[in-house]
Amino acid sequence: MIIGHESAGFTAARQAKLADRNAEITVIERRAYPLYHPCDIPFAISGEIALDSLVENVSSPHVELQLESNAEEINPDERTVKVRELKNGRTKTVPYDSLILATGSRPFIPQVPGINLNGVYEVRTVENANAIIEAAKKAKKAVVIGGGAIGVETSIALRHRGLEVTLIEMRSHILPTALDQDMSELVTEKLRKEGVRVLCGQALDEIAGGKSVSSVISGGAKYSTDMVVMATGTMPETKLARDAGLKLGATGGIKVDQYLHTSDPDIFAAGDCVETRNIVTGEPTLPQTASTAMRMGKIAGENAVGWKKRFEGTLNTLVTSINGLVIGSTGVTTKKAENAGMKVISARIRALDRPAYRPEATPIYVKLIVEFDDRRLVGGQVIGMNGVAERVNLLSLAVQNGMHVDELANMEYCYMPAVTATVEPLAMAAEAVLRKL
Amino acid sequence: MIIGHESAGFTAARQAKLADRNAEITVIERRAYPLYHPCDIPFAISGEIALDSLVENVSSPHVELQLESNAEEINPDERTVKVRELKNGRTKTVPYDSLILATGSRPFIPQVPGINLNGVYEVRTVENANAIIEAAKKAKKAVVIGGGAIGVETSIALRHRGLEVTLIEMRSHILPTALDQDMSELVTEKLRKEGVRVLCGQALDEIAGGKSVSSVISGGAKYSTDMVVMATGTMPETKLARDAGLKLGATGGIKVDQYLHTSDPDIFAAGDCVETRNIVTGEPTLPQTASTAMRMGKIAGENAVGWKKRFEGTLNTLVTSINGLVIGSTGVTTKKAENAGMKVISARIRALDRPAYRPEATPIYVKLIVEFDDRRLVGGQVIGMNGVAERVNLLSLAVQNGMHVDELANMEYCYMPAVTATVEPLAMAAEAVLRKL
Repeated sequence: MIIGHESAGFTAARQAKLADRNAEITVIERRAYPLYHPCDIPFAISGEIALDSLVENVSSPHVELQLESNAEEINPDERTVKVRELKNGRTKTVPYDSLILATGSRPFIPQVPGINLNGVYEVRTVENANAIIEAAKKAKKAVVIGGGAIGVETSIALRHRGLEVTLIEMRSHILPTALDQDMSELVTEKLRKEGVRVLCGQALDEIAGGKSVSSVISGGAKYSTDMVVMATGTMPETKLARDAGLKLGATGGIKVDQYLHTSDPDIFAAGDCVETRNIVTGEPTLPQTASTAMRMGKIAGENAVGWKKRFEGTLNTLVTSINGLVIGSTGVTTKKAENAGMKVISARIRALDRPAYRPEATPIYVKLIVEFDDRRLVGGQVIGMNGVAERVNLLSLAVQNGMHVDELANMEYCYMPAVTATVEPLAMAAEAVLRKL
Repeated sequence: MIIGHESAGFTAARQAKLADRNAEITVIERRAYPLYHPCDIPFAISGEIALDSLVENVSSPHVELQLESNAEEINPDERTVKVRELKNGRTKTVPYDSLILATGSRPFIPQVPGINLNGVYEVRTVENANAIIEAAKKAKKAVVIGGGAIGVETSIALRHRGLEVTLIEMRSHILPTALDQDMSELVTEKLRKEGVRVLCGQALDEIAGGKSVSSVISGGAKYSTDMVVMATGTMPETKLARDAGLKLGATGGIKVDQYLHTSDPDIFAAGDCVETRNIVTGEPTLPQTASTAMRMGKIAGENAVGWKKRFEGTLNTLVTSINGLVIGSTGVTTKKAENAGMKVISARIRALDRPAYRPEATPIYVKLIVEFDDRRLVGGQVIGMNGVAERVNLLSLAVQNGMHVDELANMEYCYMPAVTATVEPLAMAAEAVLRKL
């Protein structure tokens, strides 16, 4: 049995079936529709994508998907789950041989004064998006709290709708877990060019208003607004696991071993509800991306039917975009590396993605972070218009495989002036690091 | 001293200077201008790029570049080169401590009847391009001989100019060294859609005409035409090396060791004039791309001033494009692998580069070739609209580093529906191979 049918649960179901054709697979899901694309919610808010196109009526062959069903309690000793059918309120007790928890995450909402006022929104579900769209139609001003990827994307989405947008980030720069300050500044510059007011280093102190939101108080100043969007991150959804006595980790995620076993040998967990480790630092971390959830789901699905696949952890590989400017990151930032006690060196280059005489040439920025002593690549950040995600994937593969910066500098890349730079920017950045070593 | 100032020679000069600030560097070059972009010649023929924008008046600081100078003879015993100044015919004898041969390649032209008729063109230099452009202005029909990258690009360029174009390839499919038949067919389909007549499996027998070309005879048929472009490959330019008694390899290229030493310890060679080895098969091969020439030039430049860098060989990584469809390849094709006695398995997938509901989603094809026994990736081919070159670079890095297909299948990739597919096509192709193993 699988609880939850988003990236991890869906993939786990498919993969379990592929791995064992005879497995009987039941998936319990609260929603009334099978699947949706949470990562595209900001683009639905902007109006670029129709909201209903995010809902997918997928059906995995030979998987029994029970919608509008809520898993209320796990009994690990009897290996059963109490499931409530939301339509009629009836409960039933469903037995399992193996259980996969894919309960995901929910928004983390700081409990500041005024947080429950009308006009304060979360941004996660299709229903959230719908509420934001309706509010944005009437609003002139919006404040977005939180400068992670969702906050950045939602700010731009609301600008698309013509609102005056203020983005407030508590830490010193936006996308703080993905980018170093110098790379982040390029993103801030782009946001400002698109008309978003970006305020960093100030927390949300209070949301003020009467019947509805009228202003936000942050960093000692008052910002009038018609709506507030909370993009303050997520926390793992672990109530079921906790109630069943499963161990949680320091990050609040469900503790698993490398086979994605929880502390109960018959229960696996995958996706946002799990604590995993950062591959570079070895520190506990939450996965927090759909792609990692899918990779975990795949392994949990296989292992639940008897395989022994290992999940090594995550590099927190991320990509986001702002009106054509694509921003990606993998591995650790300089700060994260230093906090973990690593001695690193980095270099940042600006290059063109094609020869300068080519009219379609656009700038691209690459920053590489390398461990000083053994020259291994431990992080990379890329900002540009073309091929950013694919370059981040290349860097992710290099970090995952413990490659040295020399290997990147010497790699064989393809070249054609209509399509690529004469010297691949990743190789150029690797050379820049080598000159410092 | 360096002879030749294209990709290899230019890079060697720069890198030698970076590696040793006190090195005195002289470069001998026949052309009257410092540098040009040979890879963009077809796009100049099409008119998309101004021909003169391909000429670059670069000057490398502290490098003495002698233009319009022809290296006529090397005297390895005295370590001198006889150089003729083309402007005035004067010769001088120039001494060297280290010499780098970067003499490049010249078109290989099969000596069929009629090859010397007016209206038969080579496609390599700016002057060639100019002649083709002038001829194309008056011509209605063109035949391009040779379905490698240059032949494909030139065919499309002449279509851009409105000509009826026939492309003739001797082997069974176009881009035969880069693609397997099944991937090549996608390219043929695109060429046909763009109005190019593609004929494979037939050699050029004869070029017929009176004062000028009027037809081409191939595969027993006669094709009337106003011009013929020979894109029949290149051969290493080795006259100087041969006359100096340097050893040549089986491919006709100058024999070098892993430090790019020729058979004379004071003479290095880099770029198209050199025989190197294919990293996968270990077989001798010619580099034939500007990017490999640059990588070799870099190492030759460093080693000529006393470093000991190794050049491991090439994967013949290639990229080309046809009106937005980008085609790339690295490592070995199935055929090349089998010819080298390897037992390989491959899988080809078609995917979308973004979720299907995204209006900007475009198809992408990936084929991976994997050694059957040790599961190592030995080749990859990618055809699509976006991120093709960067994916080929990732595959090149994976092949170069002896990665297993499992590592590709399990790699952590970034995901955002506006920018990437939900499952990275490279990982999907790796999964497809794994299902066959």
